[in-house]
Amino acid sequence: MKRNALVAQSGGPSPVINASLHGVIEACGDFPEQIATLYAAWHGVEGILQEQLIDLSRQPREEIALLRHTPAAGAIGTGRYKLLPEQVEEYARIVDVMQAHNIGYFFYIGGNDSMDTAHKVAQLAHEKGIDLVAVGVPKTIDNDVGDQEFRLIDHTPGYGSAARYWACIVQNTIEENRGIATSECVSVLQAMGRSAGFIPAAARLADPERKEGIQLYLTEGGHTLESLAENVNRQLREMGRCIVVVSEGFDVGTLGEARDAFGHIEYGASKLAVAQVVANYLNEHGLAARGQATWQVPGVLQRSTSIYASVVDQQEAYEVGRKAVEIAMREGSGWMATILRKPGSGYQAYYDKVRLEQVANFARHLPEAWLTADRLDVTDDFIAYAQPLIGEEWPTIRLEQGRQRFVRLRITCIEPKLPAYIPMRWRTDHGA
Amino acid sequence: MKRNALVAQSGGPSPVINASLHGVIEACGDFPEQIATLYAAWHGVEGILQEQLIDLSRQPREEIALLRHTPAAGAIGTGRYKLLPEQVEEYARIVDVMQAHNIGYFFYIGGNDSMDTAHKVAQLAHEKGIDLVAVGVPKTIDNDVGDQEFRLIDHTPGYGSAARYWACIVQNTIEENRGIATSECVSVLQAMGRSAGFIPAAARLADPERKEGIQLYLTEGGHTLESLAENVNRQLREMGRCIVVVSEGFDVGTLGEARDAFGHIEYGASKLAVAQVVANYLNEHGLAARGQATWQVPGVLQRSTSIYASVVDQQEAYEVGRKAVEIAMREGSGWMATILRKPGSGYQAYYDKVRLEQVANFARHLPEAWLTADRLDVTDDFIAYAQPLIGEEWPTIRLEQGRQRFVRLRITCIEPKLPAYIPMRWRTDHGA
Repeated sequence: MKRNALVAQSGGPSPVINASLHGVIEACGDFPEQIATLYAAWHGVEGILQEQLIDLSRQPREEIALLRHTPAAGAIGTGRYKLLPEQVEEYARIVDVMQAHNIGYFFYIGGNDSMDTAHKVAQLAHEKGIDLVAVGVPKTIDNDVGDQEFRLIDHTPGYGSAARYWACIVQNTIEENRGIATSECVSVLQAMGRSAGFIPAAARLADPERKEGIQLYLTEGGHTLESLAENVNRQLREMGRCIVVVSEGFDVGTLGEARDAFGHIEYGASKLAVAQVVANYLNEHGLAARGQATWQVPGVLQRSTSIYASVVDQQEAYEVGRKAVEIAMREGSGWMATILRKPGSGYQAYYDKVRLEQVANFARHLPEAWLTADRLDVTDDFIAYAQPLIGEEWPTIRLEQGRQRFVRLRITCIEPKLPAYIPMRWRTDHGA
Repeated sequence: MKRNALVAQSGGPSPVINASLHGVIEACGDFPEQIATLYAAWHGVEGILQEQLIDLSRQPREEIALLRHTPAAGAIGTGRYKLLPEQVEEYARIVDVMQAHNIGYFFYIGGNDSMDTAHKVAQLAHEKGIDLVAVGVPKTIDNDVGDQEFRLIDHTPGYGSAARYWACIVQNTIEENRGIATSECVSVLQAMGRSAGFIPAAARLADPERKEGIQLYLTEGGHTLESLAENVNRQLREMGRCIVVVSEGFDVGTLGEARDAFGHIEYGASKLAVAQVVANYLNEHGLAARGQATWQVPGVLQRSTSIYASVVDQQEAYEVGRKAVEIAMREGSGWMATILRKPGSGYQAYYDKVRLEQVANFARHLPEAWLTADRLDVTDDFIAYAQPLIGEEWPTIRLEQGRQRFVRLRITCIEPKLPAYIPMRWRTDHGA
């Protein structure tokens, strides 16, 4: 019996999340006997809850092809809506929506939280006697999905592109720093990855021979502002310049608190950026009078830029999307598609699967063994791991009148079949 | 009689400053009867004062060719050292160094300040009866060199690339903003250009049809945080999302002051970034509880990134460097090379010259006529002006093992001929 399929995205986007979506779309087309129509939920779980489903089979083929090179999640949207375990009503609504639209296959592209959601949805459907096959597609620039031993998954799609972003922009920053450093000159860059240091670690790929004075401050490194200033000042005495890549999760203590005019701490978004605190601290502690520390926060650009995407990552993201569909057809529910690395010299990826519950809600860190003894750098083993993931080519991004030509799908939701529903989390603050 | 030539750079770098250097180098090679050796000053004026001169004729030709695609000023360095008019001693030292090394031609790549320096050096040499031809090469991403009527210079090399950077990253930000906006979602980006709004104005090139809800806050726009919040909140009610591009020179009043734990204002580098103040303000004024304003400060990346460079800008920067050498040979001292635009439809540039004193120390602004009535946007006339400058292709940047292959000259300074000299500005803080 033919069933429909549903794909949804969750969490922060990546430069290649659309490539995985592309893989899911194309692979679904390979199973015309099993899959009637593939829908996308507009903005993830919120779209499912509100029955906002887009018919992907009605989109122009040439537009779909642009998914591969379009960064971030503007195509079908993603969501940060978090379903809590106790919100049984909302899980039930999700299953209801799927049932109403005869969804037999659910592909969920996301990080560890999302794998938990996919797992719970599959379980609940099973309990209700509904035949729903849920399969996860990994996605996170943080590379924190999977086990600490890299046996279940070698890396997540999105990480290679974030790593390439950092390798390239740190190369650019070296040119800047070297160019203006007539005296002591420090460039501080803040990288994403609140708890796992894989992203700032990739800055090392800009200078694998360690000639340019890059210091890495990963969350795992355990440095303090004091030890950071000491290290930077030592390096300035040696070469007059330094590039500091600091994780947004680096602990700056109370110095990160922005104060209002009365000295009261301003909470939330008002916190000072870690890079700014670090630059301020350096300017006040040790830098010579002519010296200067400047700071940059590229922010979401590291997850929404396609020209720095890795072609290796693009291809793998596409393949892992395809793999999820194949798993759904051949193995059934409760899996996440994975990328693994063949042993031996020369990089080669292959695709496999892992049970959703094995990856749900576990966050992996940069392995201790990949940190150098001074905890300011990563080892050559890390370089050997990460280098192949950034690829050796520029991606192709079509320009039209000088502008990047990104995908623009027709966002027309199909006719709803159930009563309207307001997501639970919105009810308290609705109308605020 | 053969003389030597000297090239130096000044001020903040640009993605194409090296392309101008490349033009100067190649054009000097075209005048073997007049020019013996071309030297570069390491880090601009400071390098001249300290007699740190690099022989450019001894650099490998294949390395020189990489200048075209290498961003920022790591090749020969730039400097922010400001010569003050009353520091006659330092001007005299510059002329002494030039005399000692038989420099007959001085090419100074820089902004308006630098044209003033070049002018003064030429004057002083003339007063001393020394035959020194000084010619300026314009360079600034700010596009603020030249007259308000665009008759002396149409645009400065560097601007087209900064404009392309903004067109591209705002396109990326649209994908991000659209992708995560399930509720009210504001992305705030801070652009360089403290007093002239040409850079943030170029963000409009990401969306010339005005579909994506971009608001521009140029210094010239005269908006306040209050009117900004009003405009953004109106836009959020209309489409649920908004992209705010704000000039670093936007006036946020005392909210830009960071406070320490005691409520004391922290000065200098501690000031809160304008984008952060704007995002904080929006989060506190009007955004729905589910809404969020996030901020990015790409900082120096907008002037040190080569993949977003404009191929038009690269070529023009090269040509204007060549033009400066031709002016020196054929017209003599006291000029700056210029880029102008042929009238009529279809963009075509040509090169000319202007007297150094006509551009020295004058800073141009975005013309009033290019601001829309609500002062939140630029007009189609601005788009027509800026669009051709960003080009229609990606630049070619060689990758080696996945890394950008940038120029790396041999930085070996020639034997000094004069006593050592400590630049005046360094004397007070020396050893600090």
